[in-house]
Parts: sequence; C-alpha cells; structure tokens
Amino acid sequence: MTGSVWDQHTVTLPAYRRGLHDITTAVDGVVSGSEVTTGLCHVFVQHTSASLLIQENADPDVLRDLGDWFARVVPDGDPRYRHSAEGPDDMSAHIRSALTQTSLTLPIARGHLALGTWQGLYLFEHRTSPHRRRLVITTMGVAQSSTAGAT
Amino acid sequence: MTGSVWDQHTVTLPAYRRGLHDITTAVDGVVSGSEVTTGLCHVFVQHTSASLLIQENADPDVLRDLGDWFARVVPDGDPRYRHSAEGPDDMSAHIRSALTQTSLTLPIARGHLALGTWQGLYLFEHRTSPHRRRLVITTMGVAQSSTAGAT
Amino acid sequence: MTGSVWDQHTVTLPAYRRGLHDITTAVDGVVSGSEVTTGLCHVFVQHTSASLLIQENADPDVLRDLGDWFARVVPDGDPRYRHSAEGPDDMSAHIRSALTQTSLTLPIARGHLALGTWQGLYLFEHRTSPHRRRLVITTMGVAQSSTAGAT
Repeated sequence: MTGSVWDQHTVTLPAYRRGLHDITTAVDGVVSGSEVTTGLCHVFVQHTSASLLIQENADPDVLRDLGDWFARVVPDGDPRYRHSAEGPDDMSAHIRSALTQTSLTLPIARGHLALGTWQGLYLFEHRTSPHRRRLVITTMGVAQSSTAGAT
Repeated sequence: MTGSVWDQHTVTLPAYRRGLHDITTAVDGVVSGSEVTTGLCHVFVQHTSASLLIQENADPDVLRDLGDWFARVVPDGDPRYRHSAEGPDDMSAHIRSALTQTSLTLPIARGHLALGTWQGLYLFEHRTSPHRRRLVITTMGVAQSSTAGAT
Repeated sequence: MTGSVWDQHTVTLPAYRRGLHDITTAVDGVVSGSEVTTGLCHVFVQHTSASLLIQENADPDVLRDLGDWFARVVPDGDPRYRHSAEGPDDMSAHIRSALTQTSLTLPIARGHLALGTWQGLYLFEHRTSPHRRRLVITTMGVAQSSTAGAT
C-alpha cells in the first residue's frame, strides 16, 4: 500500500484526579475521524507528571493494585527528595512518569485502534489534585481511497 | 526521500514460558519481506501480561538477572494484590508489563532493523504457563524504487 | 495532508558521564534541518546501557532525585547479579535501561519538536565511565511545500 495521510490534533482532557483514566474512546474517536484506515496513531502527553499506559480494561482492581504498587515503590514525600516545590506528590510524579510512557504508538487497522480484547489506553495522572492534560495525537497511514486506488 | 510504503501483519508467536525470548529474527524477517528500505518498524503486543524489550543479546545471564530483579521488586502472590483471578502471577504480570513496553518502534535502514551490535528484540512473557502472543507489526518508509527515483 | 518526506541520520553524542543529559537542542536541530513541518521524530539509542527519557527541564534537582531513586531501587554491585563482566555498574545499567526507553517518538509541529513547556529530552547514561552513544534519528511527515500544495 502506498501514499500517506497525516493528521495532527491537540486534545485537552478533563481534569482527572490521581490514578488511571480510560481514554481509549477519546483517542479512537480521533482515529475514526481521520481518513487513515491502515497505519499508526501516536499519542503524546505534554507533561512530566502524568503519563500514558496500556493496561487491562476488565477488572478495576488491576488499576488499583497498580496504583498501590507505585505508592509503595515510588512513595510520596520521601525525605530524600530534594525537589518538593509543589508538594509531597511532586517528585514521586516525575519518577512514576519516567517508569511509564510519555508517548505511545498504536496500530490502526480498518480505521480503528487495533488493540487486543483486554487492552485499554489510559492517562495515568500522578498528581493528587486534578490537572487538565494536553495530548498531541498524530495519525498517519494509508487512506481508504489510496487502498482502493492501489487495487 | 519522498513517498511511503505501508505494510501491516499480524504474527502469532509460539507459546513461550516466563522470561525473555529473542524475536529479532522473526521481526526482521517481516521487515526484509516488506519493500521498505529506510523507515520504521512498529511492533505492538496485543496483551497486558506480556511485553516487549530491547536488551543485551550476548550474555544470557543478563536476561536471568533481569528476570530476578522483577521477581524481587514486583513479586508474585503479594497478599496486598486484590486482583488474583488467574493465580499468583496474574497481577505481577500486569505490573511488569506496565514497567516495560507494549509497543516498540525501531529504525529500518538498508531494508533491515538498524539495531546496535549488542541489541536484541525480546518478547517478555510474564505468565508462568506458556501463552501464545499476538503481535501487530507495521512497517512504513521509503521503498528502494522510490529512493532510486529520487536520485 | 498527504505526501510524506523521510529523513534518517546517525548522530554520535559526546561522551557523557552517568546521569541525565539534555539532548533536546541537538535533536531539534535535526528536525528543523529536515523538510518536515508536521509529523514525527523517532529517536533510537543503539545501546543497552544508556536510554532515553522525557523529563522536567526546569529544576536540576529533579534529575538528581531521579538518579538517586534508580541508585536505591536498581543498585550497583548487587551480589545477586550474575552478570558483572564490565564492573558493578554493568547489570544495573541494563536494568535501568529496561525500565526507561530505548526509543522515543515525538510529535513535530511547525517544523520543531512539539514538547510541553517543561519537557526536555534526555540521554540517560547508566555507566559510570563516560561513553559515546550513537542515536538513529528518523523524521517523517508532511513538508511545507506539500501542505501549501494541499491548501
């Protein structure tokens, strides 16, 4: 398949509290609104105290256990942190971001995100007070018309 | 260089047991089978209890030490896990996936993966019993003919 | 927007000591030197004991706290490591790489990296003695001329 269609959008999410928030539908809406039928979707969060993650979308206990693990291994308010300008959750937020993803690239097939059955796309908010986060979503790939033309 | 060629394949891997399994040759086979000579290869695992990793391919002790580190820091059967429907390795598998990669993008040069000398591409199976995992591999870039045309 | 321009460069960085080193300007120079105005920039480090990270670029304490966290959770010279051929920082370097990124994909908008205000792109050197690291930087997207043509 040849030819490429590119699209780029900035999306500002609602203010979410600490934890994992499912943004699969929001991102898939951008994908299905683009002309791309086979290609890739790149999602980038323009912040260093929130990140992106693919996780299990069936049992909400998975998301809680994941949050608990980070709370144990990357604790808030560790007295050894030098950087605490914005509170006890400031430095822990940066470390948790470093351990997860600032950008994710996902396959597009038949005009939609080609996730597995149990996969959801999550914004992982690391600050305790809600923040509005900005995503840059870039879609690229082959458009239906190009595919048809190539047949 | 202008023009783009896109290709997308779904590949089901053999059932691997817990640990790191070298899939460099399998993925490079898809790359060399595509027309792309300069571009990118995107590999996506459609599961949340297996992940992808670039690691040292020379000394198998590196892979064992890496597995041991995860066993210590993200233990199986932690009594604090709420989610244990599929056994003691269920929740640890999700956390280990979150700390590594669900998708990897790799450069293609001269029709092959442009990895460093000591880099291998691994499927990191986190479940103790073997599972068959599905990858979506997308290649994109410039084809030899386009490059030739641009000269 | 249709049409695609591809560009790929290998860049060898100066020899950096252990820690995070800001490479935003170097990578953005490659982006602005390419014709791409809207698209993606892929950065790949061809090594398994150095990695890539997006982090806060304002307070250098963030980078020191991040280094300290890795020193505590992924210690050098752990007697349980089997792999120590190149010294006490050998295996810890591989684990730290596994927990961060070997490749990063970043959005390009208006001919530059579209990072958030407080985001910097860092090479994370994990070895104590300085090493020269090789990056493969691939830019792809729509060129100004194509955009103009599409209007």
